Amino acid sequence: MSSDTKDLGTDGSFRRDQNYLTTRITADGRDGYPVDAGRYRLVVARACPWANRAVIVRRLLGLEPALSMGMCGPTHDERSWTFDLDPGGVDPVLKIERLQQAFFARDPDYSRGITVPALVDVPTGQVVTNDYKQMTIDMSLEWTRHHRDGAPELYPEPLRDEIEDVAGLVFEDVNNGVYKCGFATSQEAYEKAYGALFARLDWLEQRLSGRRYLVGDTITEADIRLFTTLARFDAVYHNHFKCNRNKLIEMPALWAYARDLFQTPGFGDTTDFVQIKQHYYGVHKNLNPSGIVPLGPDPSGWLTEHHRDQLGGRPFGDGTAPGPVAAGEQVWPGHGVVDPVTTLTD
Amino acid sequence: MSSDTKDLGTDGSFRRDQNYLTTRITADGRDGYPVDAGRYRLVVARACPWANRAVIVRRLLGLEPALSMGMCGPTHDERSWTFDLDPGGVDPVLKIERLQQAFFARDPDYSRGITVPALVDVPTGQVVTNDYKQMTIDMSLEWTRHHRDGAPELYPEPLRDEIEDVAGLVFEDVNNGVYKCGFATSQEAYEKAYGALFARLDWLEQRLSGRRYLVGDTITEADIRLFTTLARFDAVYHNHFKCNRNKLIEMPALWAYARDLFQTPGFGDTTDFVQIKQHYYGVHKNLNPSGIVPLGPDPSGWLTEHHRDQLGGRPFGDGTAPGPVAAGEQVWPGHGVVDPVTTLTD
Repeated sequence: MSSDTKDLGTDGSFRRDQNYLTTRITADGRDGYPVDAGRYRLVVARACPWANRAVIVRRLLGLEPALSMGMCGPTHDERSWTFDLDPGGVDPVLKIERLQQAFFARDPDYSRGITVPALVDVPTGQVVTNDYKQMTIDMSLEWTRHHRDGAPELYPEPLRDEIEDVAGLVFEDVNNGVYKCGFATSQEAYEKAYGALFARLDWLEQRLSGRRYLVGDTITEADIRLFTTLARFDAVYHNHFKCNRNKLIEMPALWAYARDLFQTPGFGDTTDFVQIKQHYYGVHKNLNPSGIVPLGPDPSGWLTEHHRDQLGGRPFGDGTAPGPVAAGEQVWPGHGVVDPVTTLTD
Repeated sequence: MSSDTKDLGTDGSFRRDQNYLTTRITADGRDGYPVDAGRYRLVVARACPWANRAVIVRRLLGLEPALSMGMCGPTHDERSWTFDLDPGGVDPVLKIERLQQAFFARDPDYSRGITVPALVDVPTGQVVTNDYKQMTIDMSLEWTRHHRDGAPELYPEPLRDEIEDVAGLVFEDVNNGVYKCGFATSQEAYEKAYGALFARLDWLEQRLSGRRYLVGDTITEADIRLFTTLARFDAVYHNHFKCNRNKLIEMPALWAYARDLFQTPGFGDTTDFVQIKQHYYGVHKNLNPSGIVPLGPDPSGWLTEHHRDQLGGRPFGDGTAPGPVAAGEQVWPGHGVVDPVTTLTD
């Protein structure tokens, strides 16, 4: 997602533009876009928590052979995400320099946010959808034909209501709540968002003290959605967004829960702390005019023991952990934590 | 001190203007300003770490009856500190609205920083000195006639060389080091200052693991100079100045040392976290354009047990602790930590 700061309420509060292209890629192709191996490209940025969700789900489900992935660089200008990490600054499949081009291919008058994650129809070069929330659910429920053997159920039918209930609260107060803190332009709006954020984190701390995962006893969509915010909390939100009652590492259950997930294949090995910090500190000049990127915090704690297995739980349920990260998709050496690719997936 | 960001090296590094008015108030009056009860006024701001040193020393030595104190508000404009907390915005003794007026009374062409702490000659309304480093030493060595019974020796002769050696390193890398991090305008200058800061904090952590105080076995100038930076570390420097390898609370010996001092009369009871945050986040618009003041961190940890007495040491040496904070000089309720006035000095 692009971190758009233009959307402000009259009270200085941040309101996220939630108007997405909601066309869906489905098994039956009812929107004109049937699931099809090789036809679509998932465009992400390592930095973005909303895109990170799709990266995790794609990897957990083993969709890499069926759905390729393009990666934008961590920083962008007012015209949004670019493929500046690719040779020549051009995505090798879509042959474009800016993600904006795929949105304009779909709609020349497109005027809303140029956001990741986006699913692009390779033959036409058009964005099909940037609706991050539906996207990962559809990966779970519509792309089943292309799941790997042992793919976990991330959105099991009996748990969907509870997943959405919990994730709804987490979205409002935490995932989007950190942005409400950081992008508030009035003290009052900031304090309101801060209060809601830490009240919700206290609630999560309590909930996760007695159970390994947020819903049920396996990893679900709810955990993935929370994780990508927690992974960025001490690295960015605590400082840059003034979410500073305490660091994540000061909340024992939540921090152990986050480490447990981080050390699970699919999570830490898709987390790039360097790009995360470059993005937030480099793009939001209104919050950080100098553009200087903090050197801290020390991320080595992410690999310390968590002892969460004592709470039971079956991370992948009846499924299995994914194998190593696909070639060419590893987090760059030094960008994660102590070579998580080999440390965590062996 | 005013936190002047104008002084930048060509490499983007911050260089503190250290040209002060160096006239001294001495027992023998050799600069024309003899020590004299009631003649001078110490002008400070709660927010400022350099001024906080003078507030602590004055209180530890019991100079309140001989040397009155004026307090500027936490925020200021480009013309620097004002008496906006006083009724009518006027200092009741000096009868001025801006500290600048006392500098101009001394020198109408004064062009350097309008800084606190400043000692003002009340009859003429002229600043005598704003040399914060000499000022506290002179309180210890020149104002002896007005020390309270039981005043501690903060600058004992046999320890002066060691105090200055240690404090010199601490000044360069920590007291001023945090400003070098925060006011750097190039990534390189920031990273250099950050490296020096945390190397020095690691050195202090090591040094303070085995001894209660920095030099000797009593509180000295060296501890006071370090304390006022540590008190602001998690509240401001960690976030606002990007000193974020870790919080102070993540360094066990240094954090226990800081709590030990905080809970000693003269330290925590002169620390105003609200004004500290208002100052830095409100004044440095180049670092925080919104002016929004973070609500965190939770300061209650400052009152937790420190167990530093197990290391021995005699806080006030052959002297005694000061009594309660003078009337009218208490940190405002809610601005410190859980009513430190009554908690800490009983």
